[in-house]
Order: sequence, then C-alpha cells, then structure tokens
Amino acid sequence: MQKIFTRISLICLLLLSAVWTISAQEKDSSALQTARRNLMPLPASVSWKDGRLPVTKSFAVAVKGQTDERLKSYVFRAMRRMEGRTVLEFSRDLSNDAAANVQLLIETQSTGNAIPKLGNDESYNLEITEKQAKINAPTTVGAMRGLETFLQLLESDKGGFYFPAVSISDKPRFAWRGLMIDSARHFQPMEVLKRNLDAMAAVKLNVLHWHLTEDQGFRVESKKFPELHEMGSDGLFYTQNEVREIIKYAADRGIRVVPEFDMPGHATAWLVSHPEIGSAPGPYKIERAAGIFNPTLDPTNEKTYKLLEVFFKEMSALFPDAYLHIGGDENEGKQWTANPKIQAFMKEKGIKDNHELQTYFNKRILKFLEKDNKIMMGWDEIFQPDLPKNVVIHSWRGQKSLAEAARQGFQGVLSNGYYIDLMFPAAQHYVVDPLPADSTLTAEEQKRILGGEATMWSEWVSPETIDSRIWTRTAAIAERFWSPREVNQIEDMYRRLAVVNVQLEELGLTHRKNQLMLLRRLANNQDVSALQMLISVIEPVKEYRRYQQRPQTMLSPLTGLVDAAQADAEAARIFNRTVDEMLSDNSAANLEKIRLMLNEWRNQAAKLTPLMEKSAALTEAKPLAADWQNLSAIGLEAVSYLEKGVAPPAEWRDRQLAALEQIAKPKAALEFAALPGVKMLVVAAVEMPNLKNVSVTERRERIRQIAFPKVLPNK
Amino acid sequence: MQKIFTRISLICLLLLSAVWTISAQEKDSSALQTARRNLMPLPASVSWKDGRLPVTKSFAVAVKGQTDERLKSYVFRAMRRMEGRTVLEFSRDLSNDAAANVQLLIETQSTGNAIPKLGNDESYNLEITEKQAKINAPTTVGAMRGLETFLQLLESDKGGFYFPAVSISDKPRFAWRGLMIDSARHFQPMEVLKRNLDAMAAVKLNVLHWHLTEDQGFRVESKKFPELHEMGSDGLFYTQNEVREIIKYAADRGIRVVPEFDMPGHATAWLVSHPEIGSAPGPYKIERAAGIFNPTLDPTNEKTYKLLEVFFKEMSALFPDAYLHIGGDENEGKQWTANPKIQAFMKEKGIKDNHELQTYFNKRILKFLEKDNKIMMGWDEIFQPDLPKNVVIHSWRGQKSLAEAARQGFQGVLSNGYYIDLMFPAAQHYVVDPLPADSTLTAEEQKRILGGEATMWSEWVSPETIDSRIWTRTAAIAERFWSPREVNQIEDMYRRLAVVNVQLEELGLTHRKNQLMLLRRLANNQDVSALQMLISVIEPVKEYRRYQQRPQTMLSPLTGLVDAAQADAEAARIFNRTVDEMLSDNSAANLEKIRLMLNEWRNQAAKLTPLMEKSAALTEAKPLAADWQNLSAIGLEAVSYLEKGVAPPAEWRDRQLAALEQIAKPKAALEFAALPGVKMLVVAAVEMPNLKNVSVTERRERIRQIAFPKVLPNK
Repeated sequence: MQKIFTRISLICLLLLSAVWTISAQEKDSSALQTARRNLMPLPASVSWKDGRLPVTKSFAVAVKGQTDERLKSYVFRAMRRMEGRTVLEFSRDLSNDAAANVQLLIETQSTGNAIPKLGNDESYNLEITEKQAKINAPTTVGAMRGLETFLQLLESDKGGFYFPAVSISDKPRFAWRGLMIDSARHFQPMEVLKRNLDAMAAVKLNVLHWHLTEDQGFRVESKKFPELHEMGSDGLFYTQNEVREIIKYAADRGIRVVPEFDMPGHATAWLVSHPEIGSAPGPYKIERAAGIFNPTLDPTNEKTYKLLEVFFKEMSALFPDAYLHIGGDENEGKQWTANPKIQAFMKEKGIKDNHELQTYFNKRILKFLEKDNKIMMGWDEIFQPDLPKNVVIHSWRGQKSLAEAARQGFQGVLSNGYYIDLMFPAAQHYVVDPLPADSTLTAEEQKRILGGEATMWSEWVSPETIDSRIWTRTAAIAERFWSPREVNQIEDMYRRLAVVNVQLEELGLTHRKNQLMLLRRLANNQDVSALQMLISVIEPVKEYRRYQQRPQTMLSPLTGLVDAAQADAEAARIFNRTVDEMLSDNSAANLEKIRLMLNEWRNQAAKLTPLMEKSAALTEAKPLAADWQNLSAIGLEAVSYLEKGVAPPAEWRDRQLAALEQIAKPKAALEFAALPGVKMLVVAAVEMPNLKNVSVTERRERIRQIAFPKVLPNK
Repeated sequence: MQKIFTRISLICLLLLSAVWTISAQEKDSSALQTARRNLMPLPASVSWKDGRLPVTKSFAVAVKGQTDERLKSYVFRAMRRMEGRTVLEFSRDLSNDAAANVQLLIETQSTGNAIPKLGNDESYNLEITEKQAKINAPTTVGAMRGLETFLQLLESDKGGFYFPAVSISDKPRFAWRGLMIDSARHFQPMEVLKRNLDAMAAVKLNVLHWHLTEDQGFRVESKKFPELHEMGSDGLFYTQNEVREIIKYAADRGIRVVPEFDMPGHATAWLVSHPEIGSAPGPYKIERAAGIFNPTLDPTNEKTYKLLEVFFKEMSALFPDAYLHIGGDENEGKQWTANPKIQAFMKEKGIKDNHELQTYFNKRILKFLEKDNKIMMGWDEIFQPDLPKNVVIHSWRGQKSLAEAARQGFQGVLSNGYYIDLMFPAAQHYVVDPLPADSTLTAEEQKRILGGEATMWSEWVSPETIDSRIWTRTAAIAERFWSPREVNQIEDMYRRLAVVNVQLEELGLTHRKNQLMLLRRLANNQDVSALQMLISVIEPVKEYRRYQQRPQTMLSPLTGLVDAAQADAEAARIFNRTVDEMLSDNSAANLEKIRLMLNEWRNQAAKLTPLMEKSAALTEAKPLAADWQNLSAIGLEAVSYLEKGVAPPAEWRDRQLAALEQIAKPKAALEFAALPGVKMLVVAAVEMPNLKNVSVTERRERIRQIAFPKVLPNK
C-alpha cells in the first residue's frame, strides 16, 4: 500500500511544517514544558503536586495482587533502565508485601490475557508522593503502560535523581495503535524486530502489523509448503520458532502481532515456487525493483484455493491473534484482463470487472479465515458493502474512506497520514487524527474507528537504517493514538521527542548512532564535522521521489548520504522557526541569531568540496556543497539588508529567487530543508521596509503569502 | 587469570606510551604510510606496483578450483561490504569461469577443514594489476584471509574507487592467534559474539577462547547436569544449539572455538547446584563481586571426578576443537587447607602442598580429556614438568614463564601483555612479542610458542561496552600475532588503527558509536560536546584500580563516564606527542599548536560544571571539570613562558607540579591521559632556557629525565 493522497509541492510541504510549527498552536511556554515534562504519549489526565520522591540506591519495588512472570520481568527491565540512567545499583528482590518500605508499589487486579487481545484494558493510575509511587492497574498490561510513564518521569538535578509528585489517571484513546513493519522488501533480522518492539512498548503502541509476503520476498517458514519460503526468500525468512519467539516477545510487552499475507497482488514471491496459481503462465523470479507489479494469484483456479486453505490454516495456528491481514491492495488486474480463461470465468459467473473478481476472491478467502476463527483485515480495496461487518478496513486512502466504511458498519484502522517511509517530518503526521474533531460520524460509528498504524514500508531501509526511519517520528504518532485529541502542540511535541530520542537508545535502538556511523563510512577517514552539519539541514526527498531520482534495487547498498539523512532536519527546523519569529520581531538579536547559523553553514560548506573529492562515495552529493554555500550566502545578504532596514533592488530579489529555484532541485535525492527560511528572508528583505505601518502580525502574514502564495491560509 | 606482571606507576606507564610513540621507532614518514597503506595486519611480503584496478558497478568475482559454500558466502559478505563502502551495486552472480571478464578471481587448491584446526594453512597470494585481482590460496581459509587484505586495499579519490596494483605473499607468523571472551562474569548475547567473530576474521585472528564458567556464572547448557546452568546462571546461558551456532559461525570465518571450564578454583557457579563436590560444605550462591574467591572443587572426592568425567565427555562432543581449556588459575587453596578431610587425604597420598594437590587433580582430569581425544590447556599454574608434553601452557605470567615451558618441551600461548581489560593503550600491547628478538630459545623450542591471545575479562564490560574494550586495540595485537616481528612502528600502527576503527563498524561493531550514546544518556538532554572533548583526554584507571576506587558488583550498571571512556584517549595522545616534538623543536608553530589544544580544553572545561550539575549521573565526575580547567591553565602558562623564552621562578614550578600531583589522583576511576604532556611543558618551561648550548636531542632527553626520572632510558 504505497500511494499517497494528494500531491502537494515540496516547497509547500516544507513550509507547512515550518509554519505549523509556530502558528497552529500557542507559542511554546515554559509553563507548558513543566506541565508536560517529558511525558510522551501524554496521559489522559495529569495533576501535578508539590514535592518529589528521591531516588537513591536503596530504591526498591514491590509487586502485589494478581501478578505474573511477564510483569516481574517487565519490572526488572524497567529497573535496569533506571539503573542505566542513574548509574545506581538497585536491589533485585521484588517484595510482594505492600507494607514493605518500597519506593514503587505496583498492584494489579488481574493478569489479563497472556497473549493480548484487541480491547484489553490498558488503563492505570499512577500516584507519586514524597514517600512512594503507586501504580494501580486492572491488568498486567496496564501496569506495563504505567511503568513506562513512571520511567519518563525520572528526572535529575543538583539534588540527585527524583520523581515529581503527581497523580495520573490514564487510558488509551484508541484500542488499535500499530506499527507496520515490512519484513518483505528488505528482510529485517530478529534483533531489529525485538528492539523495535521494546521501543513500541516504551511509547505505548500495542500492535505489530507484520508484513510478511511481497513481490520481493516470502518471509515466513511454511511447513506445509516449504518451497514458498525456500524459493521465495533468498534464504532470508523467519522460522516458525522465530515467529513464536517474536509473538512471545511482543506479548510480554503487551503487544499483539497481526500478520499480513498480501494477496492477490503483491504476490510474485508466492509464484516463484507456485507459478501454476498465477494469473499468467510464468516463470516468476523474486522481484528486485520497487513499484507495483503484475503477478497476481489466479482467483479462478481451484488450485489457488486449495493451497490457500491449507496455508491459512497453518498460519492461523501459528499466529494467535484474532486478526489476519490479507493485504488486497494495488491489484491492477493486468494479468486478469490479459488472461482469456479468467475473462471466460468472469463472463460465466457474471462478474463484471476486476474489482468484483477480487471481491469474489476475498469472499472465498474469508470462508477459510472464518473456519480458522480469524477476523479478516485488508486495505481499502477489499471494502465492499456486502462483506460481513466484522471485516476490518485498513485505510491508506484517508479519513474520508475510513469514515465511509464506519458508516456502513465496518471497523477501521487509519494509516493514511502515517506513512513514515515517505520521509515527512513528525509534525506532518502528528496533525493527522484518525477521528478528527469535525467528524460527522455518530457516536456509534465513531466507535468503529479502532485507531491507526504507522507504516514502515521497507523499499529503502536496511537493518542499519530502519530504526532511524521509524524513530522518533513514530513516538509522535503514538501520542496521536493514545492521548486526547487536544494534545497537539507541535513545538512541545518536538521538545519531548528530543528526550524520547535519547531514551530509546537504552533499548538498543540505533536510530541516532547509526547516522554518524554512516557519515564516517562515507568520509573515507576524513573529519566528519562538516558532513554532520550538512546532514542537519538536508532531508531525503519526500514521497516516492527517491526512486524516481536515484533508482536502486532491493539488493542495492543503503549506505549513501540519503540513507544517513533523516526526515526531520533539526537545524533546518530551528532555522525556519527563527526566521518565522523574526518576521514579527526583527530585532537585532533575532537577526544576529540567524546570521550566526548562516555563517556557520557557509564555513562548513566551504570544507565540503575538498572532503567530497577525497571520497568517491560522496561524488553524487557534490552539487550539494555548492548549493549550501549559495544558500547560506543568499541568506546572509538578506540579513544584511534587514539589518540596514533598506530594501534591496528588485533585480537582487529576482536573482536570489532564481538561484533558490536551482537550489530547490534535489540532488542525490536530498533537498535543503532550510530553503523556506532563506526564501522568507529574501522576501522579508524586500518587503519589510514597505511594511512599517502594518501590525507585526499582518507583516508576518503578508511576507509569508508573498513567499509561498500557494499555501493555504493558516488555520 | 587476572593478575598482572609488575606494577609500574601510572605516570610512568602513561609516559612510556607517550614517549615510545615517538622514540622507539623512526619518525613517521609519508613514504611509510604509502608502503603500508591501510593494511592491518601487515602482510609478510608486499610489493607495490604502478597502476590501479578501478572499481565500478560492473565489478564481478569468479571463484575457481576446490571451492565450498563457506567461501561463496564469505565472498558475498565481502562484496556486500564493498557495496556498503562504494554505494555501488554489484552483480550477485559468482562466475566459476576463470576466463570470465571479472575483476577479482579467487582460486583455491582445496577446501581444507570445514571446522578449522590448529596449523591449517592460512597462506595466500594476492596479485592486483590494472586488469584484475587474483587471490590464490591452498585452502578456503587462506582465501578468506586474502579477501580481508583485498578489502583493506580498497581506496578512493577524485577518480573513483580503485585497488592499487600490488603483489602480496602472506602467511601468519603464529598459528594460534586468539581472543578470549569471558562470557561468565558478564554474559554476552549471541549477537555480541557474532559481530566480534566477524571483527576477528577482519584482522585475521583465528581462535575464540570462550571462557564459559566462573564464580559469577555457569554459561553453557549441560543436558547431563542441567542444574549446573539452571542454578548457576540467572537464566543467562548458551543453549547447546546456540553453542553449535557459534561454532559454525566461527568455522565459516576460519576461526576455532576453544572452550574453557575453569577449575578447580573460579568454581562457585558449579557449587550452587553441586555443593557436595566443593571443598567446604556450602551452601554456595552465585558470586556477585569481582576478585579471587575461595570456592574450589574437592580434588579428594570421587564424586567430583564422576561428575567431571560425564561433563567433559558431553562438552568434548559439543566442541569439535582438539583443545579444551581447564583454566587452573588462581586457586589459593584456602578451602583445602581448612578442610581436615582433604588434609588427611594429602598426608595419606604423600601430597606435600596445595600445588601438588592441584597437579593430582589435573592429572585425573587429563585422563578424561585423553579419553575424549582432547588436548588439555591451562594457565601457567598447571605447568608441571612431569605432565605429558602435549599439554598446552597458557601464560598470564609472561614470556619468561612461557619460554621455560617451551624449554621443557611444552607448547605455549602468551596472554601476558595482552590483557585488554586492564585499559592500557594499544601501543603497550603492541610492543609485547610472544617470541622477542632476544629470545634464547633454540629453533626447536621456538616452534613451541604457538602464539598469543588477547583476553577480554568481563568484570566491567556490558554488551553495550564490550566492543569498545576489545576494539580497536585488539587489531594491533592481531598484527603482532600475524605480521613479521619487525613490523613495530607505533605511530603508523595508530594511523592504520584509525582506518580499521571505521571499517569494523560495517560488521555491526558498536565500539565507536556507543561512546556518544553513553554520553547522551549521561547528559540528561544537554549538549554533549564538552563531554565529548573531555572523554578524548581522559582514560579509565589502569590495571585493577577501577574496582578499588569505585567498587561495583556484577549486577551494577556499566553506564558511567568511566564506561564511556576508552583506553586510548586520542586527543591526549596527540597532545603528548606534540609536546614531545616541541622538546626538540620549540618553534612558534609547535608552541601555537599546543596552545590551541589547551585553549580549546579550557573553554570546554568551563562548560562542564554547569552541565554536570544538571545531571546527577555525572556527580561523581564533577571534580574532573575543575581538574581539567587547572590542567589546561597550567599548560597555557607554561606555553607562555616557553614563548617568551624566559624561565619561570622555581616557586612557580613547584606550585604547578604540586597541582599536577593533585590532578593525577583519579576521580570517578578516570585519569587525565594528557597529564604527562603538561608536566613536560612545565619542566620544559623551567629547563629550556638553561639548555641553549646542548643539542636538541640531548635537550629532549634531559627534560624527559627531569620530568619522569623513574622511566628507564629509551631503548
């Protein structure tokens, strides 16, 4: 499921993220920071108290009530993380005596399901006083969620480590809070899945949607049809024991595992060993390219159903979750149209188009799944009003499509807006709501919106880079799924994301540390500081432009500069925000801040060309060095005009804007995220002297409109 | 095996490494750099030619002769690493046609042993011309070694990636080139072992000595006595399937796996489940402290031998290598002396002391091992002239002890000098030779010196930090074991180590990237740049001082500043070297270099105190901030005097030296590696004006002698 809603021009997107950062919210205040501390997702209800619970090496924990091994292990891991942060060693003895003198008392009313189910109670209360912290939860999983909140509250200052006194009452807004990992296009080893499950638990996600079959790979062992994984995977697949290991690892963290076997399209890897169930004669080879391909299961062939019936029975036993995802997306039906036998079948059965034929196929599959006690889930395309109402629609098309399904009585999960493979900044995902405030659904229909899923499609992610594509943006999405709708202050989201960024590393995540590693590899034994600064102002091209601009296959190395770059270029975001602030407050101090950044960029840019010449792996990125120098120089000239308060000649403006147009063209599939800020500087240099008599708010709006006339007015 | 030879004062050690860097060798020349390029270990014979073999995306490989799957997989992995570095995608088709137009042709005469054995041929020839590279090797493992050399030759410049034309003929100096990993004190997960095996292969090490049992843990599954691992490991042990997986993983890289079951001492973990074979009644608990402990197997109890006979039979079948290590070290025999039954036994048998009793024990064990077709190996303590000559002595005591064993007919392996857990700089290990040039052994006796092993004792290493304790220093040790004795230029070793440092990361090693990660965790969401600079001038205390100064248990978190620090503080090393150069060339340029470094340190040091006050995890390190400011200030004052050429008053010198004495005291188990350089600056400021009439060489010597009078004269 790879398409994206409407196309918006790059420049607008970049600007939107820059501008939203400021204007879709109150300006960030330190009061807000205190109110939210480092919590993410923010709990449903938080009430701060005076005082603090100090943490010393005598910190001890008691677990009371209906506990299980899962909870005890979780507590030990949580304590280990606290030890890692505090460099203190705590006792390993878990008391089960509530009267004991412990600093954290956990009480659960029931263990809940050992293998979690949709809708399980995940609520908890957390009370911290100067004497003790108490987590009270109806289930083990609720206590886990509470423990993660507790860990996020750990703070330190001169006086040592402590927990602030607080009263928290928390439960999720949505029951389905997922991360889809595509293990098919690029296989992801066990440790990648495990550390990402740990990270999911840390931000209270509860569904791993595991995309296991694709044109590019069949990644699960079938004992019934071993040829499927043997011939369809290059030897890169999960054994059934490994699948069980992941399911247990996830369950121990309160996370469900929903497998996806994509069909009837996205099926090349099936057909490598079973060409007889394809809609064209074959032979088939594992697909190495990215895109949408023709190989499709033959829905008119009884052999197809015979195989699938046995296969689904096997997989239904392997995966305990009640839901099973059959994909169903992006079948363009070309093989169907081209196959006279299939055409004859359709005529005979009165099936009038490929969409109906796919529905016929889905209904056959549905029977198997019902027999196996599974609830069928699929992408938008499977949605047909006459399907049984317990089928779940997974929407890549958007809230409207999802709402329509809900109106018709279907449950649904939203992924449109959460396509993290498209390299949009966190803010862009954060503002998407599965159930927006202006939804016209009835209360009953709203209940059918189960939640959402971030989707990590893996065309361009390797085990080295996948963490950096998932995190930390997915923590912001997790907040959208867990926290009240009103939690939507972007600047404070970014502040808290920076804290999460470091905390996730204690779980083994490589999202942060592998960036510098990739730069070192690219730099051919040279100093990487200039590259490090470059990477903080550039971002990979968005949507599907990477493949268009820099074609690669599934076997290509993912070690280029574009792989080191991340979706949220932090220095650029801060720069754009600072320029935006300057539009309403063009004080010398603000201009100086901007000048310092641009100066530093220009200096670093000057070092890049010689560096790039010594490392052939950076050849493709060489034009970026010159662009960066130009970009910085243009910005600096604009700042000079702004400082003088004298408008530059129109000729100057036109020349700079033309130069920016050139810089805006991506190179090596990378683009400057700081470009909108510089463009605003240029426009501001020209316009500000003419806007002396308007309010600062109006001045800012006017300059924005001139710089980016296509952008919608601020909400 | 934890003790260390003679104690030398810290300051001397530091100085030695600083001074050796310069004087035990020719001064580093660019000619040398070209001659050695980035090769490590340096091959036995290298002859450079003109020209280069360019690397483009059409780079292709053929494998010819007696090949096996091991080699093919190795070639694929090697190509993947080349792809990672070049960002080029190569063909996956391995031709087996020598006539094919390929850039790399590999030819092997035999596959050799699928599970490697001591003494297997590891030689290879590598010829690179402008047309083609050819690796020719008698065995698969030789081809692997050649491939690693080939990968190290990959270079790039403006013209792209290429291999320089060269003719290399290579084979190892020693047959036993090991790394010992202690999985007992801190358990190390499978992925830690795997990535370290990859790194070992990259630098041509060929023995993983796997330390599996200790006072602190019994880490291998026994199916015969499952209570051993169940009760002795906290659940942290390797299943037999995992052991087989490691053995195969190692064998696929031409690496043997030699297990160690340490006895009769270091045996607490055995006795947790089997107190009846202990020399005191027990009960026993898994040991949590570091040190030498009393629990010892009872050598007078037949139950001990009954258990060990079955256990060794089981382990001998599990581990295919011909050698099995029984430890035998550091048994102080306290339980023996205290046990009247054991004393009576000794009297009855005419055993006159504990050492003889241990020999009695060893001989009984030896019989089991002989029956199991294993060659017994043990630490120095097992050495007794009347043991059969095929027993191998593993020396922690030193070359003298090893030579003595060789004279008596025993084979031996040296680890004295290669104790990487003691945190000495690479240079210190590099100059230790298992068979020094001045050895008085006969040619026959010399053959008995099989090689050496670096030992990674794991009291203070976690899975997060272990890579940084092993690498990159162990690459220098690997060169000592592989390359001719004459390869001993320290400065060039460090240059090449820096290249290896980055290359090892492509194998998943975390030695480099986890340092910054730990600093981020310590910094409590603050900028880490000042900490980063601090960590480049401080080192953990050497030898066993860490435990003395900062006691911890095996359960303590290893996330402090001392865990982020590494044994070779690079900025300090460069600083010390620059000061040493200045002693013979006190030009304005050299003084300016020194001033710049000190200035930068002083500025960064000023930022440290406020940073440390906001993070309680850094409280213990706070005194380092003040020390660093003082150290930099003292150095800067000395530089001012040197620039003026006027000697400071004696009172100034005394005050500075007294201050340096204070700074020299470790804090948070850390010490300033730049201290010797600053001390030399102070002495130089005083002495230089008086040494105008002596040669620059003599001047340097005189200042060195005054600064560090206890240091032996330069060799």
